Amino acid sequence: MTTVVPVEKKVLSENQRIAEELRQGYAKRGTLCLNIISSPGSGKTTLLENTLAGFSKQDKVAVLTGDLQTENDARRLARYGFPVQQIVTGTVCHLDGRMIERALQPWSSTEIHLLFIENVGNLVCPSSYDLGEEAKIVVLSVTEGEDKPLKYPSIFSKAALMILTKIDLLPYVPFSLEQAKANARQVHPGIEIIEVSCLTGEGLDRWQQWLAHRRATAGQRMACAGI
Amino acid sequence: MTTVVPVEKKVLSENQRIAEELRQGYAKRGTLCLNIISSPGSGKTTLLENTLAGFSKQDKVAVLTGDLQTENDARRLARYGFPVQQIVTGTVCHLDGRMIERALQPWSSTEIHLLFIENVGNLVCPSSYDLGEEAKIVVLSVTEGEDKPLKYPSIFSKAALMILTKIDLLPYVPFSLEQAKANARQVHPGIEIIEVSCLTGEGLDRWQQWLAHRRATAGQRMACAGI
Repeated sequence: MTTVVPVEKKVLSENQRIAEELRQGYAKRGTLCLNIISSPGSGKTTLLENTLAGFSKQDKVAVLTGDLQTENDARRLARYGFPVQQIVTGTVCHLDGRMIERALQPWSSTEIHLLFIENVGNLVCPSSYDLGEEAKIVVLSVTEGEDKPLKYPSIFSKAALMILTKIDLLPYVPFSLEQAKANARQVHPGIEIIEVSCLTGEGLDRWQQWLAHRRATAGQRMACAGI
Repeated sequence: MTTVVPVEKKVLSENQRIAEELRQGYAKRGTLCLNIISSPGSGKTTLLENTLAGFSKQDKVAVLTGDLQTENDARRLARYGFPVQQIVTGTVCHLDGRMIERALQPWSSTEIHLLFIENVGNLVCPSSYDLGEEAKIVVLSVTEGEDKPLKYPSIFSKAALMILTKIDLLPYVPFSLEQAKANARQVHPGIEIIEVSCLTGEGLDRWQQWLAHRRATAGQRMACAGI
């Protein structure tokens, strides 16, 4: 495996270069970009469906969604009337800057204030690839066990926010919310945490408030920078 | 990303060479090796706990369990009195042949008839790395959604068996067993499927029968080959 290390470094440093360009592009266009990462089946798409349903048609929201195969997620998300694109990665286990750059090209004249990137379902590899985002968000469902922040520390240490999903299942699964939060804070003391159920709607207002706050903060920053 | 392709091929072909050596080693030692792959939190460790609990002390069973960080799984599994080793991969998103080879060294004089390898929780990368196993087993929990075989076809096409876990949660989640099975069979028509709940014990007898059948078949093959 030693031969892969310099190449991996080269790939990551090339990715970092593209990510910086993407970041500058977002700043110029006034786009807040959020990179959502989780295991397969944690409920990223369902969370995004609920999130898009809460926006009005005037909101300039767009979604890029990554999967190895199928356009299922893009189809699900497109029903809400916002621009959505599927990135099919084939065998690649994560999204990288180049894929995002390419996907954004057809939207070069589209006004986007909020861009959600739904990464490939994988709690490991996507955490290494900066996509120029304002923040990474890690989604963990309560069915996955409270030990995951300790076992997959990279993504939990880099994410600004952990969204605990499927809390309606808490009565039926052996999962301690307190332990999960303590584990996440052990890895990343400053991580913000929101608990939601997309089935009952519980906690979605807190997620919307978080989004509104991030948008306001990013907007102020851009205004100060004269963008 | 093009620069990574030849190196990835080289890594995979080097892995294949080691996997063939491992396979020969298993055959010589009369070891049936099973490589268990799933998303994080699908219940691999809980399934293995229940499986180990069903064996008697005379059974020559051992477990290698992979994680990026923590020895939690090895601690959980060691309670059943069989040899267990944790492989901590650091940042590596899968187990490879070299890691298995290294982990088996201290057990070179230990009789092992059944070796479970619990891979790193990741539905993508582990599917590319042959560990010399007799069969790959993919574990999918009913909370992850029935679309996963279509979205992550590589592992479902390579696995001999899909174990659908957490079926006790079926009344509380939007998951169609029939659709999940149809999706798995669309990707891999010959895949075997077992439904289990480690909470209620439902289906664990079928899993034990599957194991007994595989052990008997492998034993007959080894006897025919004069091993």
